[in-house]
Amino acid sequence: MNDIQVAVAPRSRKGGGRSARHSQRQGGAGRNAHLIAPYITRGVPPYDLLTEESLLKIEAGADLILAEIGIEFRDDAEAVRLFRAAGGDVTQLSPTTWNIKFEPGMIRNILKTAPETFIQHARNPANNVQIGGDATVFAPSYGSPFVMDLDRGRRYGTIEDFQNFVKLAQSSPWLHHSGGTICEPTDIPVNKRHLDMIYSHIKYSDRAFLGSITAPERAEDSIEMCRVLFGAEFVDQNCVVIGNFNTTSPLVLDGVTTAGIRAYAAAGQGSIHLPFLLGGAVSPVTMAGAVAQCLAESMVSCALTQLVRPGAPAILASFLVSMSMRTGSPTFGTPEPALGSLVMGQLARRLKLPLRCAGNFSTSKLPDGQAMQQSMMSMMSAVQSGANYILHSAGFLDGLLSMSYEKFMLDTDVCGALHAYLKGFEVNEETLGFDALAEGGPGAHMFGAQHTLRHYQSAYWDSGLNDDQPWESWDEQGGEDSMVRANRKWKQVLRAYEAPPLDQATDAALQDFIARKKASMDDAWY
Amino acid sequence: MNDIQVAVAPRSRKGGGRSARHSQRQGGAGRNAHLIAPYITRGVPPYDLLTEESLLKIEAGADLILAEIGIEFRDDAEAVRLFRAAGGDVTQLSPTTWNIKFEPGMIRNILKTAPETFIQHARNPANNVQIGGDATVFAPSYGSPFVMDLDRGRRYGTIEDFQNFVKLAQSSPWLHHSGGTICEPTDIPVNKRHLDMIYSHIKYSDRAFLGSITAPERAEDSIEMCRVLFGAEFVDQNCVVIGNFNTTSPLVLDGVTTAGIRAYAAAGQGSIHLPFLLGGAVSPVTMAGAVAQCLAESMVSCALTQLVRPGAPAILASFLVSMSMRTGSPTFGTPEPALGSLVMGQLARRLKLPLRCAGNFSTSKLPDGQAMQQSMMSMMSAVQSGANYILHSAGFLDGLLSMSYEKFMLDTDVCGALHAYLKGFEVNEETLGFDALAEGGPGAHMFGAQHTLRHYQSAYWDSGLNDDQPWESWDEQGGEDSMVRANRKWKQVLRAYEAPPLDQATDAALQDFIARKKASMDDAWY
Repeated sequence: MNDIQVAVAPRSRKGGGRSARHSQRQGGAGRNAHLIAPYITRGVPPYDLLTEESLLKIEAGADLILAEIGIEFRDDAEAVRLFRAAGGDVTQLSPTTWNIKFEPGMIRNILKTAPETFIQHARNPANNVQIGGDATVFAPSYGSPFVMDLDRGRRYGTIEDFQNFVKLAQSSPWLHHSGGTICEPTDIPVNKRHLDMIYSHIKYSDRAFLGSITAPERAEDSIEMCRVLFGAEFVDQNCVVIGNFNTTSPLVLDGVTTAGIRAYAAAGQGSIHLPFLLGGAVSPVTMAGAVAQCLAESMVSCALTQLVRPGAPAILASFLVSMSMRTGSPTFGTPEPALGSLVMGQLARRLKLPLRCAGNFSTSKLPDGQAMQQSMMSMMSAVQSGANYILHSAGFLDGLLSMSYEKFMLDTDVCGALHAYLKGFEVNEETLGFDALAEGGPGAHMFGAQHTLRHYQSAYWDSGLNDDQPWESWDEQGGEDSMVRANRKWKQVLRAYEAPPLDQATDAALQDFIARKKASMDDAWY
Repeated sequence: MNDIQVAVAPRSRKGGGRSARHSQRQGGAGRNAHLIAPYITRGVPPYDLLTEESLLKIEAGADLILAEIGIEFRDDAEAVRLFRAAGGDVTQLSPTTWNIKFEPGMIRNILKTAPETFIQHARNPANNVQIGGDATVFAPSYGSPFVMDLDRGRRYGTIEDFQNFVKLAQSSPWLHHSGGTICEPTDIPVNKRHLDMIYSHIKYSDRAFLGSITAPERAEDSIEMCRVLFGAEFVDQNCVVIGNFNTTSPLVLDGVTTAGIRAYAAAGQGSIHLPFLLGGAVSPVTMAGAVAQCLAESMVSCALTQLVRPGAPAILASFLVSMSMRTGSPTFGTPEPALGSLVMGQLARRLKLPLRCAGNFSTSKLPDGQAMQQSMMSMMSAVQSGANYILHSAGFLDGLLSMSYEKFMLDTDVCGALHAYLKGFEVNEETLGFDALAEGGPGAHMFGAQHTLRHYQSAYWDSGLNDDQPWESWDEQGGEDSMVRANRKWKQVLRAYEAPPLDQATDAALQDFIARKKASMDDAWY
């Protein structure tokens, strides 16, 4: 524990700054104190869709892809050297491109040193999260160039929007992680915006977060800023930041990606290895094939970390997208990728790796019925798959192109409900509640039964956003659509937001690092 | 190199909204011919939430309720006589009320003659549905006094609304059953409206439907109209109509209900046995207790059918509702009842009885984001529980008080998506699609791959209502909320509706039956 962490005021789970920030919940509405935790520990089993026989076929399919077609590596001779040394069958295609084929089982063997679970540390230790096992961590959506709200419509994201979303995330007890590029801060030069994003996560949140991956030097900057925050020795021994890397599907790993992966792994930091598989475009249009390809690509990308530093945390990942065959557009929240997510959960558990999977996906352009219907189709599978890290848990609209303020609030409320869902179903003498029925017998209501009085405060999820009043009350109060309530709510939360305390010397050191980095290079906008 | 850049790329490769609109004119949108069937045959396993040990505890809890507290019967000496003869321990409480206790195992033993699956016949045999086993049947919502649409708001339902919903249901390939009291036709006298409802189901739909249960003579009328439609001998030998009965929770069966159940069973017709359990009011506030009570009540109600006519179809049922502990209002689409539904599925399979469970439940007063979020939480559990008959699959809003035209369209679209979900996940050489990747190798897109061309027409669910176009196309077309599209859609469907042919002599006989019945009694409005 370094000085920053000591400087942060310790906070009990239910007390301190958080309850002050959530004063509007102190009246009871939507508080659900019994469900608040730094991350979810699942009390429900995963939903296992496929039989052992089918899973073996998919695994064999992935092995066949790696053995017969192989992965193309670009612009990173060091990554190629590492895989060649580990036994990969390398064919040089051009001065800067190589194809590597892998014997069946070779990649799985390399992955044996990767941890099944690990802790990502937050600057507030009360917010440390477990990644893997029966833990589920919710993080905001990631990577949209646009933002939306009901007042101003759709527009390019700015650093102010970015900071607003960090604050909204920090204010929600139903997210556990600050995420990464919540929206693109397009008003900051491309080569400098990672500095402002990392700083915003540190300054306005005291939860764990993702670092930059858009260039190897930006990955290094992300890790260096964590060294300022946590201390270099602590960072070397603990995971404090994670990079979210994409393969270039189908079956390509480009040099910016592999160099970034090597940087995180060398520093002992975590990495997510995500094939973005749009079926019919960059993967087979049938889901079994997409899942086999996802497993193949993600395994190889994960394996690179273990060649750099055995034991470095690596997260298998899945982002399965269907396509409208009429327009060629991606479609989100459809049933086939939801089934694919469940299968990826089974495959990750067999591989003994943590999984990132799905999220509150939608193609809708408004936080309307379509948005929430598609989101739920996607998100229910995410949690039922046993996914450990669910990026895109809040804000996702417009096929990932826009981050919506109202959708963010609707989604975090769903995340809260999922805390109750994943808590599971306890069966014991007390929950069977025989005495509740016996007290009054047939025909007697139980409003005042002793059993009811013992349990009513934690019996049911109490949404802070849904309107569950009778029609007459709702109508008298204006008859609002849920997106209108969400619009009011995000403004209330931003007004009530207070930044978590940050040690002044650390803050100054971070600002100094950023100022020196920014001064060292011209602005670049591409 | 983040998620969004990958998502954008394929978009630019194909035309935008124009080709989408063209396809819609050609009738391609939302067709999904590969999924259309008279009912769903599930290709996915149920989601088993609890262990054998926990299930045994719940079953023991139900047995304890029946043995120690018992069920109160009211105003039906014949039902009491039947249970006494079967070994029930009867205590007369008043001239018209009795308590009956049941030895553990006694009710299960009676239920052994009830069929695990059966066929409900429709007047068009192509629409016969299997109830039980791996079949899932979707039916419209049931019992709302009010109807809503965006143009006219909330108002009492009429026979015209009722007929509109029968027509909308008949027009959707994603429902399989015409349902029952889709909304209350409040412009028809209470003692006569069952005649108009049954006639409307027969006239405007050629699917199976539910009969009346509000009085024993109305149950008899429902069955008699089926005899006119199907012939008396066919009705005696086959299930052609089902009654949807409610227990009077907690632990009461009133005489109108038991006499109705006896009427359906005596005629060899089906019956649903539904405890409506509002937790903290008429059942324990903890879900294990609510499920144990649900099992106890529904089993006893089902058992009555077997005492009347062994082999009569009986459907176990579950309607678990949470409560807002701040207002005492029921809340729908919350996580705890969703878990309860999954457990009821396990219990029904162990009992070898078909299950009716949950639906597209919501407390929202608009077909908005809240409505679809709550509906999905409830409906995903309904289908994952393995429920066989899902009433309330379309139209449910306002905590069951209102049937919404727009929600009906949104829900039927969800029902379509669930056809794709429940179809499951095939793994074989063709779906693994190795050749799709091998054809072009790493980096090659698969739009034109042979594998893609073989599968693209049936690869993904294609919503007929969601807008999956790029933002620009959606914006140019008016930037509509999904409820506005749904509003336009139900009007289009009603305009395009054509009644299925009905034999003129049968129609005349039905109308004659109704006219005689109506003439035989004065109007009653209570």
